[in-house]
Amino acid sequence: MNSLFLRYHPHMQERFDAVTVEECRAFTGAKWHHFGEEALALWVADMDFPIADEIQQAIQKRITHNIGYPQHGGDPELLDAIVDRLSGRFGWQIERKDIMLIPGVVRGLFAGVLALTQPGDGVVTQVPVYPPFLMSIENTGRVVQANPMLQKENTWELDFEQLESLVTPQTRLLMLCNPQNPTGRVFSRAELEKLAEFVLKHDLLVISDELHADLIFDGEHTVFASLSPEMESRTLTLYGPGKTFNLAGLGMGYIISRNPELLARVRKATVGMLPEPNVLSMAGTLAAYTQAQQWEREVVQYLHANRDHLNARLKAELPEVKTAVPEGTYLQLLDFNAYPFAAEAQKVLLAGGVALNEGTAFGKDYKGYVRINFATSRQILDQALDLMVKTVQTKTVQQNA
Amino acid sequence: MNSLFLRYHPHMQERFDAVTVEECRAFTGAKWHHFGEEALALWVADMDFPIADEIQQAIQKRITHNIGYPQHGGDPELLDAIVDRLSGRFGWQIERKDIMLIPGVVRGLFAGVLALTQPGDGVVTQVPVYPPFLMSIENTGRVVQANPMLQKENTWELDFEQLESLVTPQTRLLMLCNPQNPTGRVFSRAELEKLAEFVLKHDLLVISDELHADLIFDGEHTVFASLSPEMESRTLTLYGPGKTFNLAGLGMGYIISRNPELLARVRKATVGMLPEPNVLSMAGTLAAYTQAQQWEREVVQYLHANRDHLNARLKAELPEVKTAVPEGTYLQLLDFNAYPFAAEAQKVLLAGGVALNEGTAFGKDYKGYVRINFATSRQILDQALDLMVKTVQTKTVQQNA
Ligand SMILES: Cc1ncc(COP(=O)(O)O)c(C=O)c1O
Ligand SMILES: Cc1ncc(COP(=O)(O)O)c(C=O)c1O
Repeated sequence: MNSLFLRYHPHMQERFDAVTVEECRAFTGAKWHHFGEEALALWVADMDFPIADEIQQAIQKRITHNIGYPQHGGDPELLDAIVDRLSGRFGWQIERKDIMLIPGVVRGLFAGVLALTQPGDGVVTQVPVYPPFLMSIENTGRVVQANPMLQKENTWELDFEQLESLVTPQTRLLMLCNPQNPTGRVFSRAELEKLAEFVLKHDLLVISDELHADLIFDGEHTVFASLSPEMESRTLTLYGPGKTFNLAGLGMGYIISRNPELLARVRKATVGMLPEPNVLSMAGTLAAYTQAQQWEREVVQYLHANRDHLNARLKAELPEVKTAVPEGTYLQLLDFNAYPFAAEAQKVLLAGGVALNEGTAFGKDYKGYVRINFATSRQILDQALDLMVKTVQTKTVQQNA
Repeated sequence: MNSLFLRYHPHMQERFDAVTVEECRAFTGAKWHHFGEEALALWVADMDFPIADEIQQAIQKRITHNIGYPQHGGDPELLDAIVDRLSGRFGWQIERKDIMLIPGVVRGLFAGVLALTQPGDGVVTQVPVYPPFLMSIENTGRVVQANPMLQKENTWELDFEQLESLVTPQTRLLMLCNPQNPTGRVFSRAELEKLAEFVLKHDLLVISDELHADLIFDGEHTVFASLSPEMESRTLTLYGPGKTFNLAGLGMGYIISRNPELLARVRKATVGMLPEPNVLSMAGTLAAYTQAQQWEREVVQYLHANRDHLNARLKAELPEVKTAVPEGTYLQLLDFNAYPFAAEAQKVLLAGGVALNEGTAFGKDYKGYVRINFATSRQILDQALDLMVKTVQTKTVQQNA
């Protein structure tokens, strides 16, 4: 075993704490480069933490073997590990044959829309939402039927009344993001049951993106398809290791359905486009599910504490920013509309040294909002908050002058 | 550095020689499992050799860093390495922007057909050919216009006369496989120039799959697009590290075109389907191109010697098998039509302990043919040949009895 692989154990919290800006800037990925070399990067949904040792070791071991074509459909051990995880964590019983390995969950959004709808069909989705939801609908010639979440004091609520009023004869599909990026909502079983009624009433199909299902601080995750046999038969569930284990660069996700006909439609709609799974990504994912539980527990704890710290500081130092403490995910939407510079908030904060996501990416009505990613070390989070507070103060003074 | 990573150096030929059936059966991939645990696997185009140490080390190093989302379009160093390789080896000058990283070359075949043609369009391709050529045409509702290669004594020739007669007003695309799988032809510059004339005369577009371009024993590889600016402007070239460096399980390939409009059409036709490149696959490919030249030289030497050995034994021991010594690739088509059991040749040989590819996969008229993959250790190749010779003898005796 290589000594490199041991240095993070057993004090992961300390290791997470130790992540510096310099270390992050040395990464070759998108997060710390896209906005240049100046700003602190708290935008795209990667964590700044090193991956679990167990995952590194499993990949290291895998590359000492032949890495030719994998078995069709993927390594049976991995399929079993996915089955076990869904059953163990969420009480959802599936079988190997229900799983289609895909190169990342975004491909599943597009594949699902192509498979379950026709051009011109209406697709209902709650906004604000992860941008590829909107792109997968619009860029394939389908129509977004937006169901805006109701922004309340410290939460976002589903608007069932508006939802009902949206439905037209063209409406075919509900695209659900649960837990929801970017509001951080973890929908309750009661809320999901109400959505299921809606689905049944209008005879819709469902794509449920549950990629953040493991990153829960309050409440618990319910697999939408697990609500009832009817929901199982009409739902494609999307899941993967990318967020939970910080493996976005491995491009691994799954489309899961208990209805073989829906999976057959996906295969037909994506003919020739979805590659065989990458053998190293499979090895890494298997290790994540079978060996990296300790790392996972610690990262969720760390994120939980970061969430609380972030929100304590926001409340104390940026009380005019309207926001809801997320129940899950490591993402949080901040509403700057109380400030005169709100329409430019993302640009202003970037000029002030912090790169966040622009609100309008999540829906056209979210001008004046930005999304922050708090999956970083406490020191980087604090540096970013310091800069944000300073930027807001300076800007306010300027505008009052 | 881990001791595991050093054991193959510096005697790669000896290491290749040492590969045993037991070692192969321990692999988890498709090759040694698909046909059960009995037969020797000389079918799907993986090599049985361990990958280059340098590639292992590069991936090992990469996983100690953050493996979040890569930079959009791929690592600039890798793009540069691809540019350098094409220029250094084949004298083809391209730029970073001409390269689209895709998860394997088969995706490029489908993406190219979707982008460059409409349902109902005719696509000309030489047969026999790698099965996904035919699938990418047929499964997307296009029409195969087959141009059978002329089978000569020890070679396969392009049939330009038949080619000319194929063209209809619906013909839009030529799909070229060069070097050609499964005939092993490395088309000469003169042949390719004649094909280019044909393309120009009928105003066709071209997909040229050059995945085997590095595995050449006789003659030299010419990049089809490099023939002329006209060909550059109408060609998508497919290439990747999968065959040369035995990295099929990494799912890495490229669509290259000097015509930005053709790449834009590919992007449009595949909207949302092609994932961001896998960060470990990029690291492995970069190491392959910049550090693994020694391994590459040795593997080509080893394959060359295997090719000669295979053909010497075929000539001496199975003289009724009609075949052409391949100029490139590690694949060879064997024509068993001189034998009464020819129509069942693949099944008969499988029952005799050797798994080969069925000829009709490469075109409906190739009944009685099988394809052998000689990218294995000499000892396994010899074991397979022994079994094949024995099977043919037994079968002949049975049928004469
Ligand atoms: C809800 C949701 N789905 C999908 C993705 C992306 O998944 P992948 O990287 O596996 O394509 C993200 C990334 O942030 C996300 O938040
Ligand atoms: C000509 C040709 N193209 C493409 C492929 C497959 O490429 P990939 O594994 O990168 O999809 C093969 C594999 O044998 C091949 O022979």
